[in-house]
Amino acid sequence: MMTPGPGLNRTLLPKGFSAGAINSGVRRYRPDLGIIISDVPSVAAGVFTLNQCKAAPVIFSQARVPSDNIRAIITNSGQANAATGDTGFERNLMMVSAAAKSLGCSIDQVLVASTGVIGHQLDTDKILPAIPELIERAHETAEAFASAIMTTDLVPKTATNELQLSSGSVRITGISKGSGMIHPNMATMLGYIISDVKISKDFAHICLKTAVDMSFNMISVDGDSSTNDCCFLMANGASGVELKTEEDILKFQTAVNELSIFLAKSIAADGEGASKLVEVEIIGSDDKEIAKRAARGVTLSPLIKTALHGEDPNWGRILARLGAEQVPADQLAKMSLSLQGVKIFENGQPLAFVRDEVKALLKQSNIFIKIDLKSGDVRQTAWGCDLSKKYVEINTEYS
Amino acid sequence: MMTPGPGLNRTLLPKGFSAGAINSGVRRYRPDLGIIISDVPSVAAGVFTLNQCKAAPVIFSQARVPSDNIRAIITNSGQANAATGDTGFERNLMMVSAAAKSLGCSIDQVLVASTGVIGHQLDTDKILPAIPELIERAHETAEAFASAIMTTDLVPKTATNELQLSSGSVRITGISKGSGMIHPNMATMLGYIISDVKISKDFAHICLKTAVDMSFNMISVDGDSSTNDCCFLMANGASGVELKTEEDILKFQTAVNELSIFLAKSIAADGEGASKLVEVEIIGSDDKEIAKRAARGVTLSPLIKTALHGEDPNWGRILARLGAEQVPADQLAKMSLSLQGVKIFENGQPLAFVRDEVKALLKQSNIFIKIDLKSGDVRQTAWGCDLSKKYVEINTEYS
Repeated sequence: MMTPGPGLNRTLLPKGFSAGAINSGVRRYRPDLGIIISDVPSVAAGVFTLNQCKAAPVIFSQARVPSDNIRAIITNSGQANAATGDTGFERNLMMVSAAAKSLGCSIDQVLVASTGVIGHQLDTDKILPAIPELIERAHETAEAFASAIMTTDLVPKTATNELQLSSGSVRITGISKGSGMIHPNMATMLGYIISDVKISKDFAHICLKTAVDMSFNMISVDGDSSTNDCCFLMANGASGVELKTEEDILKFQTAVNELSIFLAKSIAADGEGASKLVEVEIIGSDDKEIAKRAARGVTLSPLIKTALHGEDPNWGRILARLGAEQVPADQLAKMSLSLQGVKIFENGQPLAFVRDEVKALLKQSNIFIKIDLKSGDVRQTAWGCDLSKKYVEINTEYS
Repeated sequence: MMTPGPGLNRTLLPKGFSAGAINSGVRRYRPDLGIIISDVPSVAAGVFTLNQCKAAPVIFSQARVPSDNIRAIITNSGQANAATGDTGFERNLMMVSAAAKSLGCSIDQVLVASTGVIGHQLDTDKILPAIPELIERAHETAEAFASAIMTTDLVPKTATNELQLSSGSVRITGISKGSGMIHPNMATMLGYIISDVKISKDFAHICLKTAVDMSFNMISVDGDSSTNDCCFLMANGASGVELKTEEDILKFQTAVNELSIFLAKSIAADGEGASKLVEVEIIGSDDKEIAKRAARGVTLSPLIKTALHGEDPNWGRILARLGAEQVPADQLAKMSLSLQGVKIFENGQPLAFVRDEVKALLKQSNIFIKIDLKSGDVRQTAWGCDLSKKYVEINTEYS
């Protein structure tokens, strides 16, 4: 089963992959440049932010996937290379070229992502000279790379999964970062899912999109969609194992989904200033779009987020948000609402719940809000976090 | 010209109107019940929240406007009477009936609004006995009523305007409250615009809707649309002055617009925990909907709100939000962005602005963000506020 990566664990990469990290000097002390390398040309798919203000690396990478000929993804942190004009594109290309040269491959075989402050030009004077050593240092675990892409994240986010398929076993490893400006629309801030399975680039794209829609696209820290969101899936076939049966395909897709949800929840739980992971599950809906919007709306509401921070079962705010997200009035009139498994509202009436008991349950660091609209079979889950003074502090003093 | 009401000013009501307030005992110490009365049957229009979870008073009032036969609007604070089921409707009707009885008019001549905590049943045992004295106390100024409808507001919000028309003068007085759960969609939390002008109920409705769309519907404190938003326009004709010419109509509409914008800005400036009023003006757009969404998006972004709270000219967050709101990439590439009148970004490039100078300008309590998309004649303004630890504090400890 899935092994969470943070802490003292070592997260092994799939066969034929290595990853490295280095401090190039853009940030103080912390690693700020990372790379994931496949020994052989790899299938790669990507999904990217729908923000109209796309960073240079997003535009560069988006033009190159899906592909069956990718060798590496290089990523820098500290500078987003967004809103940097032509100079931004030039410097992005310089970084990619330097990586390709050190790897001995062509520019078209290297993908790229950036994260950090918007509007600063890439400090290529520091980044370029560090690339040869970055590549030399690459090794078979994920933690160093995961640390290099962190910004306001408190913990590196990795997970890995060994999967038995009909003709052998494959490994899937995921790495991500999040923390602020998290309201992904087609992709998270940065996510990397890599495997040694042998699949086509078309399947890689469908598989990634399916997983992202139910995971990274359903989390929100602050409702601000980033200029730099990217999520990649690389599969290099180094295990020699293919998806031969329908069961293999389902197993692999399920594993990618689970990995993505695990990473997405890690991002929500480590949202800027967050002390609680909030899971909102809507069941019994008759409309997928409304269910999605409603589940996400609850995770977005600053009033609900602050109430949960204060361990306050102020369910009226949840009802108000569902109505604001256009859950139909007749469904609101019959729905039930549970907090931490305790039903507190149903059929248009608050239930006689024991307030102190629910308050005590809200002290836990995992909050479950369950809403049954009693109108159909559609269900949708979204994840978010509470809103604390710490969030305000972090973002008041950021740039 | 317009005289702001708060503070020591006395805001006079138009002819034939009176207003009153009382503490019924629902809230401690503070007045919690108010009424606006017209001596004669008055034209009344209303716009209401689009939230699907509508409070009982919203459903009651919405069914009765526009009308030319309204005598009063009664309003309680502390209890929203939302998500209260059939009991909520019954108790709302009891409150309206008691007011109608004391006024000697029919139930259909009384409108009603509520504001406060969602999900608590109206404390009619306290409210009903207080109504006769509430009505006895009614007098010709607006401040007492404005105080009675406040929740987390720090200042009462009133304004009045004497208007010279072709056949005489009329007065327009506005009263509102806001503070939290402010992201109006068709109406603000609570707004009352009353005049002694003589107009039809149809014109009253159009006039109110026009004003609300450019004022209350363009403010946001926290992006949470309330269950109780209502905005009313009452015009009782007591001045005997009609709108006789096109110029009269324009003058009157402009005055209602200005009053509404003044009150809307007062709500944004007094947003929960706010220390700054933020005005976002978009010019040069070619699409009204995108301009609206973009202007509002900037006022909504917690990252921009916290940066402004920290007096940090972090313009990248503004650009990111414009892109997230789907301002087209080609417009982002040529647009200019000014903070406090200083141009800091244009043609895809940050300008060499003096950071310390802009930081100093951001210490002011009125923040102006101006965005020129250089693509058309459409302009749109939205108002919001900064996001502080105080907001988190207020809403962590609310219910």
